[in-house]
Amino acid sequence: MERTKKFLWCFFLTAFTAFVFFNTASWAQDAPLASWNDTLPKQKILEFVSTVTAEGNPEFVVPEQRIAVFDNDGTLWAEQPVYFQVYFIIDRIRQLAPQHPEWKDQEPFASVLKGDMKTALSRGMKPLLEMVMATHGGMSTEEFKHIVLEWIKEAKHPETGKHFTDMVYQPMLELLDYLQANGFKTFIVSGGGIEFMRPWTESVYGIPPEQVVGSSIKTQYEVRDGKPAIVRLKELNFIDDKEGKPVAINQHIGHRPIMAFGNSNGDFQMLEWTTSGSGSRFGMLVHHTDADREYAYDRNSHIGKLDRGLDEVQERGWVLMDMKKDWNTVFKK
Amino acid sequence: MERTKKFLWCFFLTAFTAFVFFNTASWAQDAPLASWNDTLPKQKILEFVSTVTAEGNPEFVVPEQRIAVFDNDGTLWAEQPVYFQVYFIIDRIRQLAPQHPEWKDQEPFASVLKGDMKTALSRGMKPLLEMVMATHGGMSTEEFKHIVLEWIKEAKHPETGKHFTDMVYQPMLELLDYLQANGFKTFIVSGGGIEFMRPWTESVYGIPPEQVVGSSIKTQYEVRDGKPAIVRLKELNFIDDKEGKPVAINQHIGHRPIMAFGNSNGDFQMLEWTTSGSGSRFGMLVHHTDADREYAYDRNSHIGKLDRGLDEVQERGWVLMDMKKDWNTVFKK
Repeated sequence: MERTKKFLWCFFLTAFTAFVFFNTASWAQDAPLASWNDTLPKQKILEFVSTVTAEGNPEFVVPEQRIAVFDNDGTLWAEQPVYFQVYFIIDRIRQLAPQHPEWKDQEPFASVLKGDMKTALSRGMKPLLEMVMATHGGMSTEEFKHIVLEWIKEAKHPETGKHFTDMVYQPMLELLDYLQANGFKTFIVSGGGIEFMRPWTESVYGIPPEQVVGSSIKTQYEVRDGKPAIVRLKELNFIDDKEGKPVAINQHIGHRPIMAFGNSNGDFQMLEWTTSGSGSRFGMLVHHTDADREYAYDRNSHIGKLDRGLDEVQERGWVLMDMKKDWNTVFKK
Repeated sequence: MERTKKFLWCFFLTAFTAFVFFNTASWAQDAPLASWNDTLPKQKILEFVSTVTAEGNPEFVVPEQRIAVFDNDGTLWAEQPVYFQVYFIIDRIRQLAPQHPEWKDQEPFASVLKGDMKTALSRGMKPLLEMVMATHGGMSTEEFKHIVLEWIKEAKHPETGKHFTDMVYQPMLELLDYLQANGFKTFIVSGGGIEFMRPWTESVYGIPPEQVVGSSIKTQYEVRDGKPAIVRLKELNFIDDKEGKPVAINQHIGHRPIMAFGNSNGDFQMLEWTTSGSGSRFGMLVHHTDADREYAYDRNSHIGKLDRGLDEVQERGWVLMDMKKDWNTVFKK
């Protein structure tokens, strides 16, 4: 009896030790995707991940090829009434105005300073680019990072009063965790500014700077007084939208993803490129249907317009995620 | 006594179980850098890595910031008598010649087809770029990957008779392993073509495509007969050399590395940018001093010219690695 007890105790201790080491990671995976209802999108995600991670399954994908790409605006965080980066531009123009007395009479800056955003933003691409360059160029990459971090810590959404990083979607945070725990490398592929996102994506999404792809301005390496810097020029480098997304995916990542998540026409080609590869592929569109908890918009929206994806989601075998029906929580808890 | 034995047995089993799980990774690290002699460069590397990975050390660096960048030509594999990608260009021109009868009378192609490489390569940048475009552009990224893989499997170095991927440096393979085992993310940052390297860097160096940065031509997303492709255009996108290296590091990686390894003037700015950051930093130049086992060249070489780095290595606190003295093995074993 004594012997049996000793054996059991010892067996327990050994097993427990092994168990702790084996399971530390998988504990976090209990009940994945808790903020997703048990509807089709969640089922499809679980089914896909279980298929491609099952060794021996003909659809098994080695970890090196488990690349998942996510649009940011409207897919990982909200994008209404305008892209959050626009608030950054506006706040920066106000901050910089004392150094630019000429802006008082110069559009689109004059409208911004008067608080007339509608006029400022209704003049098309050229004035918008001028505002981008005035606020994003002319400093070093390190200075810009500091500016973004200071802003994102303080700034609040004009309608919800939340910090912008609290307007990331809880179900998508759970999805990123779930994919990462299953050996996926998760990338952001966004029309937003690459250097606008990188300072905070690691702490907010668990996505490091080298896994962030976005639009960019040109930069230049300079040594001033013996101190090197990468200086941000006031010149466009790349727009990471529509056909640009597969191009940027190829340039930054170098393989075709097996999962893609988007929400607007700007993501169509990224989903098309991802899901037209061989083997199991997964494409999902976030459909903004919840005016109570978030926003409801698609075909007629100026921001995040979605029509072609809605029309072709069936024939392409993509999953349409209906925010109102499929998510029990929207924003980060 | 019986109780003590049981206790010891149990203690041993528990400890052993824990030990196995803790140490599986570190076993591989026994005697790191075996192909490096016990001279200064190896000592400096071991000392640096042990410093930045020791929690509690004021110079400790969190794993997310442990970024190490490596030049490729002359740093990870050989580059004499010409960059290996030039052999690819030459072989491709020969293969494509039947489809281009006009090349017989058109320089630089005519010289290549006559086997007169000296003339073909001595005409400067413009004809070289023409050869690059003729052989690297005009197909999809997937076709190009296939072409590179077929070539690298067969082609051999004209002087050593080795496959090019057998002319990678054994000490650098050990260094990559050692850094990866210590939580470093290792990137290639090369003047060579990004899509020329990516097909084989994972199997040869353990560096996946998304951690390869290089020169590139422009690409375009196209859908032909419903089938999407990324088409390689005959137009230069980016030259990843000299001042271009810090720019590309910022664009692709988004943080400043803490270690950089190069061998020529083309790597100067990469080392400068890396080692001028705050905290512990490490820069090393591979000095090609071994005409018996490899090649000996520096200040007067057309390929891999190194002068400024040699002159400033002391004042900048970089390590000069002398291939003859500091490596006991050169090529991959």
